[in-house]
Amino acid sequence: LDSIFPKHENFANRHNGPSVEQRKKMLETLGVESIDDLINKTVPQQIRLDKDLDLQDSVCENEILDRLNLIAKQNRCDWRSFIGMGYYNCCVPRTIVRNMLENPGWSTPYTPYQPELAQGRLESLINYQTMVVDMTGLDIANASLLDEATAAAEAVSLCFRHNKRRKFYVDEKINPQALEVVRTRAGLIGIEIFVEKLERMDFSCRDFSGVLIQYPDTEGRVFDFSDVIEDAHTHGSLVACSTDLLALALIKSPGELGCDIALGSSQRFGVPLNYGGPHAAFFAVRNEFKRLMPGRMVGVTRDVHGKKVYRLALQTREQHIRRAKATSNICTAQALLANMSAMFAVHGPQGIKHLANRVHNAALLLAHGIHKAGHFLVHSNFFDTIMVHMTSGVHDIYRRSGEKKINLRIYNGGRIGVALDETVHEHDLDDLLYVFGCDQTAAELAAELGGKLEGNLNDSPFKRETDYLTHPIFHKYRSETNIVRYMKKLENKDVSLVHSMIPLGSCTMKLNATAEMEPISWREFANIHPFVPMDQARGYEELLKELDRDLCEITGYDSICFQPNSGAQGEFTGLAAIKAYHKSIGQHQRSAHKYSDNLSAIMLTYPSTNGVFEEDIRETCDMIHDLGGQVYVDGANMNAQVGLCRPGDYGSDVSHLNLHKTFCIPHGGAGGPGMGPNWGEGSTWYPSLPTHPVVPPHGSILPHANPLGVVSAAPWGSACILPISWTYIKLMGPKGLKEASEIAILNANYMAQRLKGHYDILFTGKNGFVAHEFIIDTRGFEATSGVEAVDIAKRLQDYGFHAPTMSWPVTNTLMIEPTESEDKDELDRFCDALISIRNEIKEVEEGKVDRELNMLKLAPHTLETISADQWDRPYTRTQAAFPLPYLKPDAKMWPATGRIDDAYGDKNLVCTCPPMDDY
Amino acid sequence: LDSIFPKHENFANRHNGPSVEQRKKMLETLGVESIDDLINKTVPQQIRLDKDLDLQDSVCENEILDRLNLIAKQNRCDWRSFIGMGYYNCCVPRTIVRNMLENPGWSTPYTPYQPELAQGRLESLINYQTMVVDMTGLDIANASLLDEATAAAEAVSLCFRHNKRRKFYVDEKINPQALEVVRTRAGLIGIEIFVEKLERMDFSCRDFSGVLIQYPDTEGRVFDFSDVIEDAHTHGSLVACSTDLLALALIKSPGELGCDIALGSSQRFGVPLNYGGPHAAFFAVRNEFKRLMPGRMVGVTRDVHGKKVYRLALQTREQHIRRAKATSNICTAQALLANMSAMFAVHGPQGIKHLANRVHNAALLLAHGIHKAGHFLVHSNFFDTIMVHMTSGVHDIYRRSGEKKINLRIYNGGRIGVALDETVHEHDLDDLLYVFGCDQTAAELAAELGGKLEGNLNDSPFKRETDYLTHPIFHKYRSETNIVRYMKKLENKDVSLVHSMIPLGSCTMKLNATAEMEPISWREFANIHPFVPMDQARGYEELLKELDRDLCEITGYDSICFQPNSGAQGEFTGLAAIKAYHKSIGQHQRSAHKYSDNLSAIMLTYPSTNGVFEEDIRETCDMIHDLGGQVYVDGANMNAQVGLCRPGDYGSDVSHLNLHKTFCIPHGGAGGPGMGPNWGEGSTWYPSLPTHPVVPPHGSILPHANPLGVVSAAPWGSACILPISWTYIKLMGPKGLKEASEIAILNANYMAQRLKGHYDILFTGKNGFVAHEFIIDTRGFEATSGVEAVDIAKRLQDYGFHAPTMSWPVTNTLMIEPTESEDKDELDRFCDALISIRNEIKEVEEGKVDRELNMLKLAPHTLETISADQWDRPYTRTQAAFPLPYLKPDAKMWPATGRIDDAYGDKNLVCTCPPMDDY
Repeated sequence: LDSIFPKHENFANRHNGPSVEQRKKMLETLGVESIDDLINKTVPQQIRLDKDLDLQDSVCENEILDRLNLIAKQNRCDWRSFIGMGYYNCCVPRTIVRNMLENPGWSTPYTPYQPELAQGRLESLINYQTMVVDMTGLDIANASLLDEATAAAEAVSLCFRHNKRRKFYVDEKINPQALEVVRTRAGLIGIEIFVEKLERMDFSCRDFSGVLIQYPDTEGRVFDFSDVIEDAHTHGSLVACSTDLLALALIKSPGELGCDIALGSSQRFGVPLNYGGPHAAFFAVRNEFKRLMPGRMVGVTRDVHGKKVYRLALQTREQHIRRAKATSNICTAQALLANMSAMFAVHGPQGIKHLANRVHNAALLLAHGIHKAGHFLVHSNFFDTIMVHMTSGVHDIYRRSGEKKINLRIYNGGRIGVALDETVHEHDLDDLLYVFGCDQTAAELAAELGGKLEGNLNDSPFKRETDYLTHPIFHKYRSETNIVRYMKKLENKDVSLVHSMIPLGSCTMKLNATAEMEPISWREFANIHPFVPMDQARGYEELLKELDRDLCEITGYDSICFQPNSGAQGEFTGLAAIKAYHKSIGQHQRSAHKYSDNLSAIMLTYPSTNGVFEEDIRETCDMIHDLGGQVYVDGANMNAQVGLCRPGDYGSDVSHLNLHKTFCIPHGGAGGPGMGPNWGEGSTWYPSLPTHPVVPPHGSILPHANPLGVVSAAPWGSACILPISWTYIKLMGPKGLKEASEIAILNANYMAQRLKGHYDILFTGKNGFVAHEFIIDTRGFEATSGVEAVDIAKRLQDYGFHAPTMSWPVTNTLMIEPTESEDKDELDRFCDALISIRNEIKEVEEGKVDRELNMLKLAPHTLETISADQWDRPYTRTQAAFPLPYLKPDAKMWPATGRIDDAYGDKNLVCTCPPMDDY
Repeated sequence: LDSIFPKHENFANRHNGPSVEQRKKMLETLGVESIDDLINKTVPQQIRLDKDLDLQDSVCENEILDRLNLIAKQNRCDWRSFIGMGYYNCCVPRTIVRNMLENPGWSTPYTPYQPELAQGRLESLINYQTMVVDMTGLDIANASLLDEATAAAEAVSLCFRHNKRRKFYVDEKINPQALEVVRTRAGLIGIEIFVEKLERMDFSCRDFSGVLIQYPDTEGRVFDFSDVIEDAHTHGSLVACSTDLLALALIKSPGELGCDIALGSSQRFGVPLNYGGPHAAFFAVRNEFKRLMPGRMVGVTRDVHGKKVYRLALQTREQHIRRAKATSNICTAQALLANMSAMFAVHGPQGIKHLANRVHNAALLLAHGIHKAGHFLVHSNFFDTIMVHMTSGVHDIYRRSGEKKINLRIYNGGRIGVALDETVHEHDLDDLLYVFGCDQTAAELAAELGGKLEGNLNDSPFKRETDYLTHPIFHKYRSETNIVRYMKKLENKDVSLVHSMIPLGSCTMKLNATAEMEPISWREFANIHPFVPMDQARGYEELLKELDRDLCEITGYDSICFQPNSGAQGEFTGLAAIKAYHKSIGQHQRSAHKYSDNLSAIMLTYPSTNGVFEEDIRETCDMIHDLGGQVYVDGANMNAQVGLCRPGDYGSDVSHLNLHKTFCIPHGGAGGPGMGPNWGEGSTWYPSLPTHPVVPPHGSILPHANPLGVVSAAPWGSACILPISWTYIKLMGPKGLKEASEIAILNANYMAQRLKGHYDILFTGKNGFVAHEFIIDTRGFEATSGVEAVDIAKRLQDYGFHAPTMSWPVTNTLMIEPTESEDKDELDRFCDALISIRNEIKEVEEGKVDRELNMLKLAPHTLETISADQWDRPYTRTQAAFPLPYLKPDAKMWPATGRIDDAYGDKNLVCTCPPMDDY
C-alpha cells in the first residue's frame, strides 16, 4: 500500500533544518561521503547501537493530535476538586495563556545571561519579585523556584547556611508532600528534621537552625504563631513560613509577623493546575539573608550609558561567569510560569483583593451551612479551606460527593477537608452544601444571614492592614488592550528562537514545534488536580506509560521516574538513588569522595562537554563496575546519542534526561519548565526510586519498596509538559529521531569546519571531528588585542545573534551547539558573523584600531546610540550596526540596552521595580 | 447572596479602556457632570432606549467558555465528511494556526492603506497571489475574495463589464450553491443566466458575455472543454473556470487550457472547514483583464528611496483615496485566511504535489474497490472525487455509512458521491470500502494491483507538465523553524492593535479579547463540513439561535440572517431583500432612483459618517414610510448605539451589522473575516430573506417562502467566527454593552476637546458634542503650508501611530474613531502627536521651515534613513524619529519603507513576487 498511498508527511523534514541539497553541500565541505560516513568517523564503533529503535513509526501531526485527544479525554476534568494542599483551580486569564504561554516569543528564549537581549522578561520577572515582596511583607524575593516543597527544602538549607546548626523543626501541620521533600533533602545533607506541634517546640538549646511553619496551615487554620517566632529569634533560630499568596491579600503577612523567610506556590496566581506542574514557587527573605538566597534573582543595575536596566543579580554563582567560581545548586527557576503569575498580578491589587474576599466569603458561607447541618468545624479561623469533623454519615458524604463529581480531601479519623478557590460558583456551593447534608442553598443561607458573615478575617486580629502592589506597574495595564500591548512590548525586546539560532553549548535550543506545544493547554491536561483519584487521570497514566516505554527504548534503561521537575533535580535524584541503592545492599560506606571499593559512583557527561565522543567510555564504565561503583551519565547531551548509542548499553546505571532539551520542552525564558526523569538499570534499582506520600505511584511504573524519599511536590513532577516530549517522539518516529542526532552532529561539524582557520577548535575526536557541539578558543586574543570572550559575545548581538555559552567548560572560550533544527543558511550567517568579528579583532591586533575604542569593546550598539544626533566614534554607524549584508534595518533585532555593568548591580542590590520615572 | 458572594469579575472593566479615575478626568475636561450627562447631550432624547437590554447578565470568561464548550460538543466532529462540493478537510499546519490565526499580531491589523506599516502582510498576500497565478496558469490574481460562489458571481460581472452582453452560460455541473449565488447576483444586475450542458452551448449569436465551467466538475469529472473555449473565444465570449488548487497540482491549468478567468476556494490549502467559512476564494485573470479585476490586488511599487515595496494596487477604487473616485464593490477580501493559505504554500511545491498524488491515488484505489464490489463509476477521469451509480443496495450503503459515522454526498437517482482529501488515512479507505460493500481492504487491493494504478491522471492527456511555485520564496522556509521565523519577521513589520491604537473612523478597531477568539480554533467549531446533516451541527444551531435572539434585542429587529459573509455582502443582501419584499407585495415599480411612491428605500448611516447623532432620524424614517418606502440603516456605526438606541425602534426596516466591528471579530489584516447579518422588521419580511440550495435553513431562524435568493456559498456564511460575537455579548452583558457605547462616545469627545484650538472639528451635534467619531479639518493647510492630509498621515507613522481614515467622508480631512477600548493615556499620546504635528505645520506656515524639505513632506522616516552614516536634512535625526518623549528607541514601531509611490506601481503593475534579489 505504501507505494500507492504513502504517509501524509514526514515530520522529521520539518524538525531537522537542512534540506537534502544543503546536507549534500555540507557533507562536501566536510569531505565525507555521507552522513553514515560522518557518524562512523565521530561516534565510536564499539558503542554504536546495532538496531533500529523499537518505536512506533512517525505519525503526522494532525493524526497524532487526534490520538492524544482521545487519550486526554480519559482525564476526567468534569470532576471538581476541592482538595487544596497547595493546588487551587483558578481562572487563568486567557490572554496570558495565548500571548505568553502559547507564544514562542515568550516560551523559547534562553536564560537571560545576555541581558541586553532579555530586558523584556527580566522586567516581567522583577514584577514577579515585587509582587512576592509586597504580598509576603519581606524585603527581597527571587525569580522563582520549582515548587512549594523544594522551596521549603531550600529554606531549611538557608537556615543551615546561616547558623550551621544541624537540627530543624517542622510544624506538623504543613502539606505532607512538602514535609517529605524536606525530610529527604535534609537527610541527604545531614540535617535532622523534628516534626512537632508548635507549642512543644523548644529552641533554648540553640541547636535548631530554624523552624518551618505553614500559614494558613494544611488544614486551613489561620493562627497566631508570634510566640514561636519570638522564642526562635531569641535563641538564634530562623523562622520560615510556607504561605498562600491569595490568603495574604486578607491576612497579615509573614513579614509583618516577624518571619525571616516566606515561600509557597504562586500557581493560583494565573497558572493552571497542570496535574501538579509546572508552576512557579516563590521565595522571599529579609534583607540580611539576601546573599544566602537560593536560585536566581533579577536585579537592577546600569548599562554603560548609565541607564537603569535589569539583569540576573549575583551571577558569580553560575557556570557561565567562571568555571572555578561556579557554585551549583539544585533550584532552577520556572520563569515562564513566574511570568504568567507576574502578569496576573499586573491586573492590580483591587482585583486580587476582590478574589480573596470572594473566596473567603464563600468558605464562611459554606462553613455556616455545614455547621447548620450538624457537623463540627475543627478550626474557626480560616481563609478558604475548612476542616470538618463528621458527627455522622461520612459514607453518605462520600456517596453524595461521588454523585456530584466532587473531590474532597479525606483525612484519617472521619475528617474531611474542603478547599475553595476563585473558580467556585454559586452552583458549586449549592452542591457542596448538598454533599454535607445541608438542606439550604447558598442563596437561602445568605438571605437568612442578611448579608452579615460571622468569623470574617476582616474583623479579626489577623486582618491585613498594609497595602500591596502599590507600584504603578500594577495599575497602568488594567485593560486587556493594555496588558496585551505590555506583553508584546516586553516580548519584542527579547531574542528567542523565533528570531535566530541560539547556539548555547549543552543547552540545546532547538525547535519546539507547535504540534508538540498545543496539548499542554488542553483543558483535559491543564485542569486536573495532582491528587485526584487515579481513575480520574487515566489519560495521564496512559501517556506516562507510553513515554516511559519510549524513553527506556531510547536510552537502554529499564525504568523511568518522572518526579524530578528540572535537570538539576534529576541529577540530585539520580545520586540519591545510587546512595539508596548502596544502602539497600548494605554498602553504606561508599561515597563519591572515596575510591576503589569505597567508591560510590562516577558522574560524567557523554559525549563530553568538550564536544567529543570519547573512545573509552565503555572501558571507563567497566572499570567503575569492577569496583562495585555505579556510573551516572549526565543526560544533557542525550540529543547527540538518540538512535546512535545508548547509555544503558555502554555501561551507565543511571542518568537524568533534560526533557526540555533533547525532547523539545521549550526553555521558557530562564530555565523553566524543566523535567529530569531518572532511570536505573535492572530490577534491583526499582526499590530505590522516589515515592510520594499522597498519591500511590502507578503500580506498573514505580513498584517501590525502599525508596530514596520524595523529591518534588507532585507525584509526576511537571506532568503537564510531558505531552510535549510524548508528541515529539511520536512525530519523529525511530528514523526521524536518529536523523535528528545525525544532523545535530553534521551541523556542528559544518560550523567547526567553516570556522577553522579563523578560530582554533579546542577539542576534536580521533578522526578530527567534533560531536554535536564544539569549543572555539578565544583565549589568545586578550594578549594580542585585549579582546575577551565577553567582547565577542556582546559584538555578536550587533550581528543579530545571541552568544554561545561563555567560559564553559573552559574559561574565556565559546561553546557552540547549533542543534539539528537550524538550516545551512542560518549556520552560514552565524559563521559569517564570527569570521567578520575575527577580522575586526585582527584590525586591533594589527594596530589599525584602538584597543579600547573599538566596535568590540563598545558593543553592543543600541538603536539609541545609532540614531543619536551625535556620532563621535572612530567607526561608522553602518559598521557598528550593519556590518554584514544580511542585517537589514527593517528586520534587525536590537539590543535594548548598552553593555550591562554587573558589578554595580551586585554592589547595589535592588530586586524590586524601580521608580516609575525609570520606565 | 450578591453582597456576600459577588460576581467573579466584570469583563467590561477589561474591555473598556479608561479606568474610573481616567473617566472622571475626561468628564472634567469635557465640562460635563457624568457619563449620563454626556450621553443626554449627545444622543437625541426622542430615540433613547427607555429600558435595559433584556440580555443575560455578564458572565466571567472561564465560565462562559465552559458553557460554550458544552455547546460546541453538540457538534459531531467525530463524523467524517466525504461530501466535497468545494469544502475539504485538511491538515491545517498547527504552527500556522498558532502563529498566524491565533496571533493578534496577524489578526488585528487594519486593511493595508498605510503600506509603510503593512509590508509584512502585503508580502504574504503577494505570495498568495503568486501561488494562485502559478497554480491556475493565469497572469494575475487578486488578494482573495469571500468564497467560491461569490467569486463566480464576480466572474459573471467581469465578463459583462468586458463586453456588455447580458446573457451568460453556466455549465450545469457546477456546485449548486455557486449556481444559486450566480443566479441571484446576475438577476439583480439584469444578466440572464442559462444553465446548459457544455455540448449544447451556442455562442454564435455573439450575445453571451461568457461561460462558467467547473473543472474538475461538481461530480468530480476531469474533462476536456477545449472545444467550448475555442467556440466561446471565436464569438467574443470569455471563459471562466471554477477550479481546485490541489487538483491543479496534477492536471493542466485553466490558463494552459485557454481560460480567461479562474476562481475557486483556497480553503483546502491550510484552512479549516469552519462549517463553511471564513475561507479565502481566489480569482485570477489574463493580463488584458487586470483592470477589470474585482477586489484588492497587492502590487509591487517603489518607495521614495527607490526600494521595491508592496502596496494595494489600483487603489483609486477605494474610499480613502478620494471620495468622488471611489467605486464600491461587494467583494472584500479574506486576508487572514489568504495568508494562511499562502504560508501553507510557502512549504513548497514538493509537499503540495505529494498531497495531490496521495489523495488522487486514494481515490483511484477506492474507485477500484467500489468497481470490484459491483457498482458503476459514472466518470472515469477524476482527481479526488468519484460518483457512484449503485447497482443495488443503496439503503445498505446508507446504513453502513451511518454505522461508520461517514457523511457522503447523496445525489438524486441512487447516485452517491465520495470526495477524498489529504486527511484520509488507510482506515478511512477501509471503512469506505466496507460501506460500499467491498470485502477487501485498501492494503489487500493495493497488493492485488501490485502497486500499479489504472486510470491515473499522470498517464492521461490531462497531466500537468508545467512547474509551479518555482519562486525561491516557496523553497527557503521549508523547516518549521524557518516558517516560524518568517511569520514573525513579517508580523513585526506591521502595526496592529498589539502596538497602538488604530483610530480608523467607522472601522472600529477595538479589543478582540482572547476569550472571544479562542473558540474559533476549537475542533468542534473548526472541523465541521457546512453540508453535514443538521443533527450533527446542533452546537452551531444553539449558538445561532442565541446570537439571533441577542442581536434582535440589541437592534430592535425581529430576525437575523447570518448568510452574508462581509459587511458589503450584508448591504447587498439588505437591498435585495427590500426589492424582494416590494416584489412580494406587488410593487415592482419601486426603485432607489425614483421618488415619492415609486421610491424603494433610503439608505443612511446612523450616527452619520460625519460623526453626529442627527436629531431628525425618526422624522426621516417616518417620511419614507409614509411613501411606502423602506429604510435601510447602515449598521457600521452600531457600536455607538448598543444599549442607547435601536434602529428597529426609531424606524429602520433593515440593516447589516459589521460583526467584525461592533461585535469584536478582528479585522484580519485586510478586510476579512467579515460577517454582515441582515435583519428585517416584522413577519412580513421573513419570506424575503436568503435561502440555500443544499442545507434547508433552521426552521426557527429562517422560515422562508419567497426568498431573494442565495448570497453566500455557505448557509450561515462565515459561521465559525460567530462564537466571537456570541462570547463578546455574554461577557459584557447588557450593562457592559451599554457602557461600551458610552465610553466610545466619551473617548471621541475627549479627543475632540483636546484637539480643538489646534484643528477644526468639522461637525458636531446641537450641543457641541460629537458621536463616537469625528472629523478634523486639514483642508486649509495646503494653501498655508503645502501640507496635505496624506502628509499628516505619514508623519503620524514617525510618532508610532497608524493614521485615521483619510479623505472620508470629506476629501483631505481625517476621521478619528478611538473606540471604547483605548484608555486615556493612549488617547493623550495620539492627541499629543497630532498637536505636535500641528506645530510642525505652523513652522512651515511661518516660513521657518521649507515647504518641501520638511519632516512632514519627507515622512515617514525609516530606520534605514535614521541610522545612515550620512544625514543632510534640515532637521535632526531625533526630531525626525523621536519628536516626543513617549517615543523610546527600544520600543518604537518603525515604518518598514519610505513613502510609497502609488502611481509608479499602478503604471507598472506587478502583482507576483519580485526576483529574490529584492528580498
